[in-house]
Amino acid sequence: MTQNVVVQNIDRTPMDVVDALGRLGSSTIHEAQGRTGYLGAHLRPIYAGARVAGNAVTVSIPPCDNWMIHVAVEQCQAGDILVVSPTSPSDAGYFGDLLATSLMARGVRGLVIEAGCRDIQDLTQMGFPVWSKCVSSTGTVKETLGSVNVPIVCGMAQIRPGDVICADDDGVTVVRREEAADVLDKAMAREANEQGKRERFASGELGLDVYGMRQRLAEKGLKYI
Amino acid sequence: MTQNVVVQNIDRTPMDVVDALGRLGSSTIHEAQGRTGYLGAHLRPIYAGARVAGNAVTVSIPPCDNWMIHVAVEQCQAGDILVVSPTSPSDAGYFGDLLATSLMARGVRGLVIEAGCRDIQDLTQMGFPVWSKCVSSTGTVKETLGSVNVPIVCGMAQIRPGDVICADDDGVTVVRREEAADVLDKAMAREANEQGKRERFASGELGLDVYGMRQRLAEKGLKYI
Amino acid sequence: MTQNVVVQNIDRTPMDVVDALGRLGSSTIHEAQGRTGYLGAHLRPIYAGARVAGNAVTVSIPPCDNWMIHVAVEQCQAGDILVVSPTSPSDAGYFGDLLATSLMARGVRGLVIEAGCRDIQDLTQMGFPVWSKCVSSTGTVKETLGSVNVPIVCGMAQIRPGDVICADDDGVTVVRREEAADVLDKAMAREANEQGKRERFASGELGLDVYGMRQRLAEKGLKYI
Amino acid sequence: MTQNVVVQNIDRTPMDVVDALGRLGSSTIHEAQGRTGYLGAHLRPIYAGARVAGNAVTVSIPPCDNWMIHVAVEQCQAGDILVVSPTSPSDAGYFGDLLATSLMARGVRGLVIEAGCRDIQDLTQMGFPVWSKCVSSTGTVKETLGSVNVPIVCGMAQIRPGDVICADDDGVTVVRREEAADVLDKAMAREANEQGKRERFASGELGLDVYGMRQRLAEKGLKYI
Amino acid sequence: MTQNVVVQNIDRTPMDVVDALGRLGSSTIHEAQGRTGYLGAHLRPIYAGARVAGNAVTVSIPPCDNWMIHVAVEQCQAGDILVVSPTSPSDAGYFGDLLATSLMARGVRGLVIEAGCRDIQDLTQMGFPVWSKCVSSTGTVKETLGSVNVPIVCGMAQIRPGDVICADDDGVTVVRREEAADVLDKAMAREANEQGKRERFASGELGLDVYGMRQRLAEKGLKYI
Amino acid sequence: MTQNVVVQNIDRTPMDVVDALGRLGSSTIHEAQGRTGYLGAHLRPIYAGARVAGNAVTVSIPPCDNWMIHVAVEQCQAGDILVVSPTSPSDAGYFGDLLATSLMARGVRGLVIEAGCRDIQDLTQMGFPVWSKCVSSTGTVKETLGSVNVPIVCGMAQIRPGDVICADDDGVTVVRREEAADVLDKAMAREANEQGKRERFASGELGLDVYGMRQRLAEKGLKYI
Repeated sequence: MTQNVVVQNIDRTPMDVVDALGRLGSSTIHEAQGRTGYLGAHLRPIYAGARVAGNAVTVSIPPCDNWMIHVAVEQCQAGDILVVSPTSPSDAGYFGDLLATSLMARGVRGLVIEAGCRDIQDLTQMGFPVWSKCVSSTGTVKETLGSVNVPIVCGMAQIRPGDVICADDDGVTVVRREEAADVLDKAMAREANEQGKRERFASGELGLDVYGMRQRLAEKGLKYI
Repeated sequence: MTQNVVVQNIDRTPMDVVDALGRLGSSTIHEAQGRTGYLGAHLRPIYAGARVAGNAVTVSIPPCDNWMIHVAVEQCQAGDILVVSPTSPSDAGYFGDLLATSLMARGVRGLVIEAGCRDIQDLTQMGFPVWSKCVSSTGTVKETLGSVNVPIVCGMAQIRPGDVICADDDGVTVVRREEAADVLDKAMAREANEQGKRERFASGELGLDVYGMRQRLAEKGLKYI
Repeated sequence: MTQNVVVQNIDRTPMDVVDALGRLGSSTIHEAQGRTGYLGAHLRPIYAGARVAGNAVTVSIPPCDNWMIHVAVEQCQAGDILVVSPTSPSDAGYFGDLLATSLMARGVRGLVIEAGCRDIQDLTQMGFPVWSKCVSSTGTVKETLGSVNVPIVCGMAQIRPGDVICADDDGVTVVRREEAADVLDKAMAREANEQGKRERFASGELGLDVYGMRQRLAEKGLKYI
Repeated sequence: MTQNVVVQNIDRTPMDVVDALGRLGSSTIHEAQGRTGYLGAHLRPIYAGARVAGNAVTVSIPPCDNWMIHVAVEQCQAGDILVVSPTSPSDAGYFGDLLATSLMARGVRGLVIEAGCRDIQDLTQMGFPVWSKCVSSTGTVKETLGSVNVPIVCGMAQIRPGDVICADDDGVTVVRREEAADVLDKAMAREANEQGKRERFASGELGLDVYGMRQRLAEKGLKYI
Repeated sequence: MTQNVVVQNIDRTPMDVVDALGRLGSSTIHEAQGRTGYLGAHLRPIYAGARVAGNAVTVSIPPCDNWMIHVAVEQCQAGDILVVSPTSPSDAGYFGDLLATSLMARGVRGLVIEAGCRDIQDLTQMGFPVWSKCVSSTGTVKETLGSVNVPIVCGMAQIRPGDVICADDDGVTVVRREEAADVLDKAMAREANEQGKRERFASGELGLDVYGMRQRLAEKGLKYI
Repeated sequence: MTQNVVVQNIDRTPMDVVDALGRLGSSTIHEAQGRTGYLGAHLRPIYAGARVAGNAVTVSIPPCDNWMIHVAVEQCQAGDILVVSPTSPSDAGYFGDLLATSLMARGVRGLVIEAGCRDIQDLTQMGFPVWSKCVSSTGTVKETLGSVNVPIVCGMAQIRPGDVICADDDGVTVVRREEAADVLDKAMAREANEQGKRERFASGELGLDVYGMRQRLAEKGLKYI
């Protein structure tokens, strides 16, 4: 229960599925899997415009201690996204441009952290996207162990190593590894369906008609006056 | 009291007044009407640089249910701004690019929502401005009625259909329809007055002298040491 | 205890030290002085990309009253940064483009305020950086005195006139005037040290090896499985 | 628009209706009027156990200025509840035991304030209930006018003078004066209905059966496994 | 992935272990299991003095919809604690005295809810303890399905049906079912150890000596001046 | 700058002044010293009814590390109040019944902490009052040094060792040691003055007349309608 471990071999989601999910975005995928998996509105990107997906490498860290992030780097490979959550709420700055340099050298695509990060101007220039609770200069120590590649709670979701992390300006959604291919199908179907609707809306058709809502509204008792 | 209604014919503020207010911005108008009408610092634009004004079409919605936004679209016309407030606090994402496409097709100028919105990258690309409490992928249902074009509370202000919504990077200020022409006069006078002061400040004059503050400060007991 | 004063002659930190600190950024300086001096993650820049340092001119103001900011302008000189904190929490908009014009005319480099500011579009265009708790149109009055150039608490730090304020996208860190030269040395050493590490990380070396962490991790009981 | 006024003659809700509503509590009344009128979960009682209703005397005050509360006292009569909202968010302590003494002398039943109050130990001992955003020692000034007995926004609701304020440990709900008798009927019917249900639940019957929910759940697709 | 289910047969932790954990309290158990399992400081009891433990019956509900709580009641038995978490953040009042009556009739010991509850005065009088994010009169609907007895995230922890919930005035800690007996041993050892220390502290001995901290402090460089 | 120290000999405020301040309460003292010194509305007592004053023994601690509180106990004497502030925001539970036992054995009167505490039921039973940001079971480590009896920022105030801490249900106010006797005089004068007013208010006199406000209100332009 308190044994701190680094799990070295994890099952990852195939990269073709990951990459296809990455084109769709957090909100579409959240909808496609029945409105689940969103980590919460408090995790914001440090700059606008990024859209990535990757296999989760998870890190459970003590509050205000970023030692285990250094440990986790070694467990990362190309196409991963690092997901970090402290065991007590904190908004210190656990992550900066040096760790990002190290992760980029391994092909890691981004960071999701239920805490703060720093060196924003460097990270922006490097093009290394981070979704965090806040930005903070506050430094951390390297004194206490945590664990790598164990299931963690990050925001409102549980995340297991090898789950798919999908992040863009809307935030972060997690997809279970064993459901990823199925979610991808549903999300692509949803996207295709929306494209047709988008054109109808652009031409002036109303959702009331496109979705056939008028009768049900009347049955519920809506009055036009 | 619980009858859900859609009010179809509302009195709007004339567009020449609306457009002139739109050039002045939230803060100037807030000041011009005696420091009232600001909706609160929690409503932030999803991208920087927009400045719009429009006639309010109001929507009172149940929490986590965006059905009535679809109903409200039909009540909108060119020059309107949709204003949406749930009856219980929520930060779900009630609004995305499809609804924005539909509103743009009708000439609607933007959205103000006391909740979350999503599809930020699309909305930014489309140039459809939104002022919201947060950004969130969290989806909503279409199960429960609300009302369109009734007075609502949004942030710290009451908003009635046809009131003028003025929004920019400072946030959102509402102007009562019957006071709009008068507020416009006062705001333009304030703007003209500020322009003269801006030049004096730029040339190095002090507010202490421009506003003649020194004597009153001394009377209140301020000591220079 | 309640005497409101304006302290006219303050000791400032030499500008060569200030300017050198300004190149290093909030997080590096926070670390260099033993992880102290950061004002908190709640103070955010109104636009991305600014990095400044300056001598603090401090203003203690009553809540929702910006009179003393006008008084403080006269006490500012080139290379200063104005630091404003109300005596009760507030998110009104105490500061806008007219005050910024006046400060820019005197060579002031920016504003840090434990409250709100407004006229964001103008301030952005002028290139006058502000770090604030929020953006708000809400206006203030000019009725009650405060003090200029007395020690104040701003966020999580005490700030004295003539202390160095270092601000960038990571936030704001204060450096004690009498420690500024020493902090500069330490920060530059840290920066140089990090530059070497950055190259090693970019080439694929791991922090575990660069920092020699493996043995201590094992001693603490970390298990690889 | 900025004229500050004291409206002296307001229409109040009859006291028999007010008193009957006062026995029912905030949540029952909120439900009885179609889940509307609740001011929000942020307004908490300073001590547990109070349950009151009264006619609203409203006060719009500038932030951190309690002058108008003194003005409002004169407008109060037995059976009233004072409702105070500042025009900008604030958590200063606008109200303490002296004002409470004055209000109790006039038969006022309590205070609702979208801000802070103080002298909690005295108020508790006096038995004068307050629902507030927070408790704070922070004092206020008496410099700027506001208005008494104008419509105000307090929390999530608009409140007009003479509306009924119903408050208990669940918070505060407002009832429109012209709907008060009707809401009372509905709330009493609801209460009576709940009493019958309470007995059935106490005897072990399930809501699934009492409310006849099983079929609709099955139709929606709920699976028991 | 979106199938809503009610899992009817769950494995529970033996009641002798549950009851013994219930005597120890949230903080002792959190420590005993390596500082894990705490749900977060935001979940507060509605009245002071309760201390309970029970087997978790979990409910995942849509935001502002309490239908599934009625479904969950049927799945509860004596010694359970109901744990409810909405899929999107919400502070509506999902739970009141009628549901509590029904749960008490089944021997349920309390409720933990990542949202609001209401009817506080009744719940207090009944002695049915609730740990919630807030108190709110805001009502909910019964329109959308969720699931019962699936793993949920509640605050900062994942909770599975049959895990042990330990709650008192310090908040709520969860213990994994398969670790419960082991945690109980560790917590009782910790409690016994603390009892001995309590007596030494009461007699005036210092923690510096009781824990033998002086040498390590000196080694870390602490200076007494 | 980063040297961690324990200052052993501090100047304290005489106990007769401390005790007299302790009878007056946080709000009266805050007013008597010109509306300064209040630490903020976020610091709440763990139980109602305590009112204490004492000499501050200050502790600056790293986040989520309570080692230095053990160090600080040795520096405490009868009549002190321990004031603890972490260098980064945190709501972990740094303090519980064992530390309280140790402090009570030395005659310490209470704790003020800009973070969380735990063991609330024990602390309440022991009668050891704590003012904290929150209650939390979350444990802390003992790995990193801080300092004792250096000036710290706690909430919105700077606190130096030997300053007077005054705390009750309204919160916490600090009095500078060198101003304490003067503040006491002013606070007692204020209290006496209020006593006379309380009687006039209880007999029905209005603040408008007691304070002679009517003319100034009229001059400011208040209209009665």
